[in-house]
This record gives sequence, C-alpha cells and structure tokens, in this order.
Amino acid sequence: MVYPKHAFITEVGPRDGLQMEKQVLSTDQKIQLINGLVTAGVRAVQVASFVHPGKVPQMADAEAVIDALPPTETVEFSALTLNLKGMERACRTPIQWIEVSLSASETQSRNNSGMSVDEALAEADAMIDLARQEGRKVRGSIQCSFGCVHECEIEVVQVQRLAERLLNKGVDRLILADTTGMATPPAVRQNLAAILPMAGDIPVGLHLHDTRGMGMVNLMTALEMGVAYFDTSLGGLGGCPFVDGAAGNIATEDTIHLLNSLNVATGIDYAKVASESRRLSRLLGHDLTGKMYRLLGS
Amino acid sequence: MVYPKHAFITEVGPRDGLQMEKQVLSTDQKIQLINGLVTAGVRAVQVASFVHPGKVPQMADAEAVIDALPPTETVEFSALTLNLKGMERACRTPIQWIEVSLSASETQSRNNSGMSVDEALAEADAMIDLARQEGRKVRGSIQCSFGCVHECEIEVVQVQRLAERLLNKGVDRLILADTTGMATPPAVRQNLAAILPMAGDIPVGLHLHDTRGMGMVNLMTALEMGVAYFDTSLGGLGGCPFVDGAAGNIATEDTIHLLNSLNVATGIDYAKVASESRRLSRLLGHDLTGKMYRLLGS
Repeated sequence: MVYPKHAFITEVGPRDGLQMEKQVLSTDQKIQLINGLVTAGVRAVQVASFVHPGKVPQMADAEAVIDALPPTETVEFSALTLNLKGMERACRTPIQWIEVSLSASETQSRNNSGMSVDEALAEADAMIDLARQEGRKVRGSIQCSFGCVHECEIEVVQVQRLAERLLNKGVDRLILADTTGMATPPAVRQNLAAILPMAGDIPVGLHLHDTRGMGMVNLMTALEMGVAYFDTSLGGLGGCPFVDGAAGNIATEDTIHLLNSLNVATGIDYAKVASESRRLSRLLGHDLTGKMYRLLGS
Repeated sequence: MVYPKHAFITEVGPRDGLQMEKQVLSTDQKIQLINGLVTAGVRAVQVASFVHPGKVPQMADAEAVIDALPPTETVEFSALTLNLKGMERACRTPIQWIEVSLSASETQSRNNSGMSVDEALAEADAMIDLARQEGRKVRGSIQCSFGCVHECEIEVVQVQRLAERLLNKGVDRLILADTTGMATPPAVRQNLAAILPMAGDIPVGLHLHDTRGMGMVNLMTALEMGVAYFDTSLGGLGGCPFVDGAAGNIATEDTIHLLNSLNVATGIDYAKVASESRRLSRLLGHDLTGKMYRLLGS
C-alpha cells in the first residue's frame, strides 16, 4: 500500500468544535488553545467563523480572536464564511485564509445560509472575487458532499457542479466535507475519482466527521488515493447540529497516531495535542469523543 | 479493492463487555440481551467466561446463563476459559464452543492467569485435550497479539510460536486479539502475513479493541487480506482493564454498517443491534463508545 509521504492537517477544533459547545470560551481561552496547538506543531488552524453572532454566539469574537493570534508566518490561520457579509467582515481583519463554504444539499444550504444552492453559488462568486481582490487565499468547501440527513444521497454530479464552479473561480484549496458523517469508503473513492482530475494542481482535502464511526476508514481510503489534506479537531471536538449526541470531527491526535503508523509525516506531536484536548475537556466539563487524549494527555 | 463476500461476526459484548461493567447484570438481564442479539441475526455470541467469581463477579453466573440460553442450532454460543479448572467447569455445561485464551505477553499472562506463557501453553494443551474429549469446538485466542502496555512491542515470532502450538493441538478457529488496542494497519498486515499461511483451512479471526481509535482501519486492513472473522461488541461495550476510560471492542453495529457499505454480508440487522445497545446503555446508566446506536436505537 502506497501512502503520501506527508499530510497537511488543518486543525478545525477552535471553529467547528467550539461552535457546538454550550459553554462559550473567552477570547483569551481560545488564544491559549490556539497557541498550544501551534506549539504542538500544527501548521494550519481554523480559528473563527464570520456568521451571525445571534445564531452562533460562540464565534461572536471572531475579530478579537484574529487580532490576538500569535505572530507567525509558518502557520495558516483561517476563518469560515457563509455569505458576502461574512466575507466583508473577514476582509476587514488581517486573516490570510478565508473559507467559502457551500452545501451540496438544498435543505442544508437553506438551513445554513438561508440561500438555495444556486443562490449560494452566485454569492460564492462575489465572495471569492472580494477575497482575491483583498489578496486572501481561499479554501472552497462543499458541505454534505457525501450525503445529507435531510436528502439522503447527494449525487456525485451535484458535488462536481459545485466543485467546478469553485475551481473555475480560482480557489486555492478545495475541501469535500462530510458534514453529517455519512461517507463510506466506496463513496469516498467515487467522489474523489470524480473530483481529483478536475482539480489538477489545486489540492483537494477532506473534512471528515466520525458520526457513524467511519472517519478513520474514510481517511485511509482517501490516503490510498493520494489525498494528503485533512481537517481534524483536537479530541474529536464538535458535533453535528442535526443529531443530538453525535460525534464531531475525526480527532487530531488519533489521526496523527494513525498517520505515524503509516509513515505519513505531519510535523505534529500528537501527545502535545492530546494534552490540549485533556485541558479543554476539563474546561468544557465533559469528555470528548477522541481516544488518544484519554491515554496520553496530562 | 476486493473484500470477502461474507463476514462472520462473534458478538462478545455479553462477556468481554459486561465483565468490565461495575454493575453486575442478572442472569435474566443477560438472557434478554442475548435473545435480542440472536433476533438481530447474530450467529455467534460469547456468553460467559469461566474465571474466578471473586475476581470477575460479573461472570459468576456462567452456568446459569448457559442453562438459560435459547434453544437454537444455528447460533454458536461460546464461553471463555483461562485454565484447566475453567475448562472443567465449562465441560460440565452443554456449551458447544469453548475459548482457550492465552497471552503473547509474559506480564499479561501472569496478570490474567497467574502463569508464565510457557506454563499457560502447557495448560492449554490439557484444556484442548479435555474439550476435544468432551466433543466441544475450540476457539484458540492469543491476547496481546499486537502489543502490550507493559512490554510494548510483541514480536511476531512470539505470536507465531503460540499460534503454531494452538494449531498443532487442533483448535477449530484461531483468534488474534488486540487486547489493548495497540494494533496498526502495518502490524495487522505483518501478523496476518505470518499467521495465515500457518493456519491453512482453520479460520483466523481478529478481536479488535478501539482504545486508540484504530479498530475500524485495522478491520478494513484485515478484510483486504481476506480475513472474514471478527469479534465485536454491541455499542462498543467493554474496556481495557489496564486503562481507565479506554474504549472497548469495536462496536457491532458500527462494524456491520461499514461491512454493508463494502457489500460484505453478515446477516445481521444493525438497527436491531443498535436498539439493544440503547437499551443496555440505559440499563447500565452510561453512554457506550459506539456511534451508530446513538443514531439508530429506539
């Protein structure tokens, strides 16, 4: 079995993880967490989202978090946006990477952004234009790429249609997100076989949730196809807004442990990430779903 | 990717799972659980272990459980034994399958059975002799086949030595157990490459724990090598006696969900298993580590 020699991990816990938590962390607490992750060797962190603070109060301090980020040129910090207003807010900060997030599911698109998929695609054009004008790098992401709890199966052609639009517009990275943890190894193979040739030199990454216990097999399936970009979350933090008690993203430290065993280098010290997870678990007052942090954290 | 068309699942929750629970289930509660699993289509259940009732009070009613098993000829019921005394007890019941469990780790062997590996091997000879004399089928299992928290790495030659002894003595099935969840895909490949040719027609199975989040990738790695026998536990019930808060076996319903997606048939209705997990979780008063039961159980 041949795997990539290196993998690039984007830690999304401070955004995808914390947005699901009842307890709203202070800006200082978030910065302490982000600093800990950077010290562990993480080279990309999604630190905030520019969404309505009434809807997602956990992310209301997006500007303050970005203002307080550690000065480093070797770490990619990113923020997520769902509409032009969010993109405008993002562009008033110095954040270097901005994610433009669409959904392949009509229902989820309306729930998430109040727009149909076609409306969201048009909005994404304007968002990407603005980001490029402002000299920012863009992560284009497609939520529900592998299924949707409302609409069940999502057709590959639908994912291709969104991917083509984002790629033509000039995103710097394309992320297929398994928002509800419905991906399976055959679905990962099918989608990647359709998308990878379209993307050419633009890296394609996966954002996997472990809602159905498939996160790691899906990651390994993608690795075997040469994919080397993955979003993960410390301690498996996070959840699915549709499903009570469901699991979050695949856990950063568990992923690194797997990648290490396959000789895929990431530069990340998973024991240090696990320590951050353990600290965060105490702070949030509940267990996280990841495994390694229970064994390794201090 | 080519996978086996069918997989044979042995549900070990009533033994490996319940032995870790503080709450001791009554015989009636165990039988209700076992009946539920059989109704879900499970064709093999490990229902008890014959170990010292002072050490493992959860299994003190082994004889009573076996007496109350549903009358069926299509389900393999098994019990675990660690020494000749346990085998003698098992042979006084009508249980058809008996597991003779050794450990590849000296420390774990002494902790578990009070014997060195060589002493346990000699005892296993006598145990298998008795079982065959009494017309029972034998599952020979090797704990810590992929590592030990006390001794770290376990050499493949050590696993081979134990496997050869069990195979020569005439076990009907050989199980490599990842007792502490230390297996990785390369370790699974290495061990299976060494053991499968030795086993010939005797089926080789894996007993995987998800302590480090690797359970499913290890299962998929073994599937890709043609292995089709797996031990699983409803809801991921169980744990590791060495590690507080660590995960149990790979969850039956999560495993079936993965196998279904790969078109590997098991005959098991994973939604029905999930219902049993949900009921058991309520009975035990805590969440289990599996994923699917949170979504599917009723």
